[in-house]
Amino acid sequence: MTQWDDLSAAELAVLECVFWSAGASRHMLARQSAFSLSKTKAAVAGLVERGLLQETGLQESTGGRRAESLRLAQDIGLVAAIDLGATSLDVALMTPDLQPVAHHAEPADVRAAPGVIMSRVRAILREQLKACRAKPAQVIGIGMGVPGPVEFDSGLLVNPPLMPGWEGFSIREELREDYAAPAFVDNDVNLMALGELWRLHRTLPNFLVIKIGTGIGCGIVCHGEVYRGTDGAAGDAGHICVDYDGPRCHCGNVGCVEAMAAASAFSRMALEAAQSGESPQLARVLAQRGVLTPEDVGQASRSGDVAANAIIQRCGQLVGRMLASLVNFFNPSHVFIGGGLARIGPLYLASIRQSIYHRSLALSTRHLHIEYTALGERAGLVGAGALVMQQRLRGALRRR
Amino acid sequence: MTQWDDLSAAELAVLECVFWSAGASRHMLARQSAFSLSKTKAAVAGLVERGLLQETGLQESTGGRRAESLRLAQDIGLVAAIDLGATSLDVALMTPDLQPVAHHAEPADVRAAPGVIMSRVRAILREQLKACRAKPAQVIGIGMGVPGPVEFDSGLLVNPPLMPGWEGFSIREELREDYAAPAFVDNDVNLMALGELWRLHRTLPNFLVIKIGTGIGCGIVCHGEVYRGTDGAAGDAGHICVDYDGPRCHCGNVGCVEAMAAASAFSRMALEAAQSGESPQLARVLAQRGVLTPEDVGQASRSGDVAANAIIQRCGQLVGRMLASLVNFFNPSHVFIGGGLARIGPLYLASIRQSIYHRSLALSTRHLHIEYTALGERAGLVGAGALVMQQRLRGALRRR
Repeated sequence: MTQWDDLSAAELAVLECVFWSAGASRHMLARQSAFSLSKTKAAVAGLVERGLLQETGLQESTGGRRAESLRLAQDIGLVAAIDLGATSLDVALMTPDLQPVAHHAEPADVRAAPGVIMSRVRAILREQLKACRAKPAQVIGIGMGVPGPVEFDSGLLVNPPLMPGWEGFSIREELREDYAAPAFVDNDVNLMALGELWRLHRTLPNFLVIKIGTGIGCGIVCHGEVYRGTDGAAGDAGHICVDYDGPRCHCGNVGCVEAMAAASAFSRMALEAAQSGESPQLARVLAQRGVLTPEDVGQASRSGDVAANAIIQRCGQLVGRMLASLVNFFNPSHVFIGGGLARIGPLYLASIRQSIYHRSLALSTRHLHIEYTALGERAGLVGAGALVMQQRLRGALRRR
Repeated sequence: MTQWDDLSAAELAVLECVFWSAGASRHMLARQSAFSLSKTKAAVAGLVERGLLQETGLQESTGGRRAESLRLAQDIGLVAAIDLGATSLDVALMTPDLQPVAHHAEPADVRAAPGVIMSRVRAILREQLKACRAKPAQVIGIGMGVPGPVEFDSGLLVNPPLMPGWEGFSIREELREDYAAPAFVDNDVNLMALGELWRLHRTLPNFLVIKIGTGIGCGIVCHGEVYRGTDGAAGDAGHICVDYDGPRCHCGNVGCVEAMAAASAFSRMALEAAQSGESPQLARVLAQRGVLTPEDVGQASRSGDVAANAIIQRCGQLVGRMLASLVNFFNPSHVFIGGGLARIGPLYLASIRQSIYHRSLALSTRHLHIEYTALGERAGLVGAGALVMQQRLRGALRRR
């Protein structure tokens, strides 16, 4: 993608528009960019000539002559995307318009030494490239999401509570062993937000993405851009207090929503319900397996277990309390709920919604939508791919 | 200022840079704008020729030839700025670089009918213009801050809790009776944030301004711009819960920080301390005047009254709880504390700080500054003036 450095501002603007709109006509590109239709048409012609843009047939007619549709050429290269969660690792290769050509998922323990995890990442990417008959030189960039705060400019993790061994470890240098293309590292929830922003073709300027799993984090889109804060710590909503008399969290404070409503809270409440006899179903699972997970609570809830329903409602209510504060402060148009626990059962989303509406101001919820993330489990990977394209196009524009 | 519509993009960019930097050299303008030094110099020459820019002598030397300094010409016109608080009205005329040429302040009750308040505003402006020997046609724009949520594009208040009679009332139409120049309306705390952004020459991209008085509100600067949210309700932090078992707020919820730590809470706690005998000093004031205000608490605290100190610390702690949630979520570089209660005593800021550091994550507070607003009581007026200049320059750029 270093060939992009030769492109004009109009050509780069066209590529950027096509990437974010996922299929665009020349008229649409001219409307969205700052350039005239004739200049845009010339830029498109130049890009088609260079093999960077492809015509993909006609768009649906809206009356009048049917407009052709443009997309990024598939032979620009491949985008590598990595989504490291607290307990999972996803690695994918994608086309420049973020269509997957290879995807592998496996369990992982982020508390392991970074060298161990990164060896797996590099091995999986090697296998995927081999399977696609592609060479490392065809990779135009690597995007990686991690479950901790990242100093975006350096790509280094800073004080990551779930993965202390990664402090100061350079993911970029590790990947530089195999790839000349640049690597970009970001917090996993920021990438979910970026993925949703891409899916929405940047049509929503202000929204939140909440990830609920081992921890609770929030991705923020503000003025149409992912917002990372002064130290890369923005969206660290898991340690917002939802009960000033609540239990102590690993961060040292009391009543953090992460301590009271994330995965470990589900398991703890499930154990209590099983041991107290409140939930016969959870007691059976505990007797069989000796351990209870959030998924067990979801399963029991779907079977109509009253105690499991109460756990889900309680956790949903607490997440809603935290979100009510954020809605009052940020007044987003949408809150998207994702992460491993998001779909634990319909009662969960209902409880979150009820709690937000109960505690937020009427004006802030008048047009508020509270929904699941549309990309679901793929949001992090899509966001990692979007980060690569966004940063490479911006880099080319800056070097002009 | 309609003459600005004839200017080139480079000329408008130069005017905007000069406005935000409050005195700039040609080299600095070229660095900050997207244009070359020669193009910038030509734009400056054109603007000086048209009487829109003035040279104001040499800047301090940083070695080498001393650079000249440029500023907006004083005869461009006058900016009218209005800051309506819950209990006060400030009206000012300013030069285009926001230096005051007239300022009037008087008590006001925002619950009065909008017609009553706006008549006073119009009368004061007429007097000020007369005193400056200026005509209404010389006013290039009017900026007004109000203590309620504003739909920015229409300039209308939406569900304003402190001023319900203003719902649907058009401040713009009212001012159009006297002025051909456009009027811009915004929430008072947003304007404080814009004022501080101007004072800082846009050098801080992410910060919060908290106004504590009759209510509690928050102005948000994100990515270098004031952030207003989807419905103009962003920053409505007064109804963030700081005690889930707290007293009921006028909004219907319990434990809102506005109910527990703003002006009415100070007065209520002062009354309790006076009546219980905990505070002999407040009891004396109550006996003399029959009523207690937050200022009485501040006065008693400065005289060493233990109960008054406890009230200030308690309210500071609760405001700090609310701010800790915002700091965890937004990771700002600075939190500026302003409004009528901000300087009630040094204990107040100390308690707010202590509470924020206690409840926020270490990463989010590593570089956090918590300070008084530097513009103090003038922040709202300066912001109203900055809004006029920002919107008029942008309007001219859009119409090109």
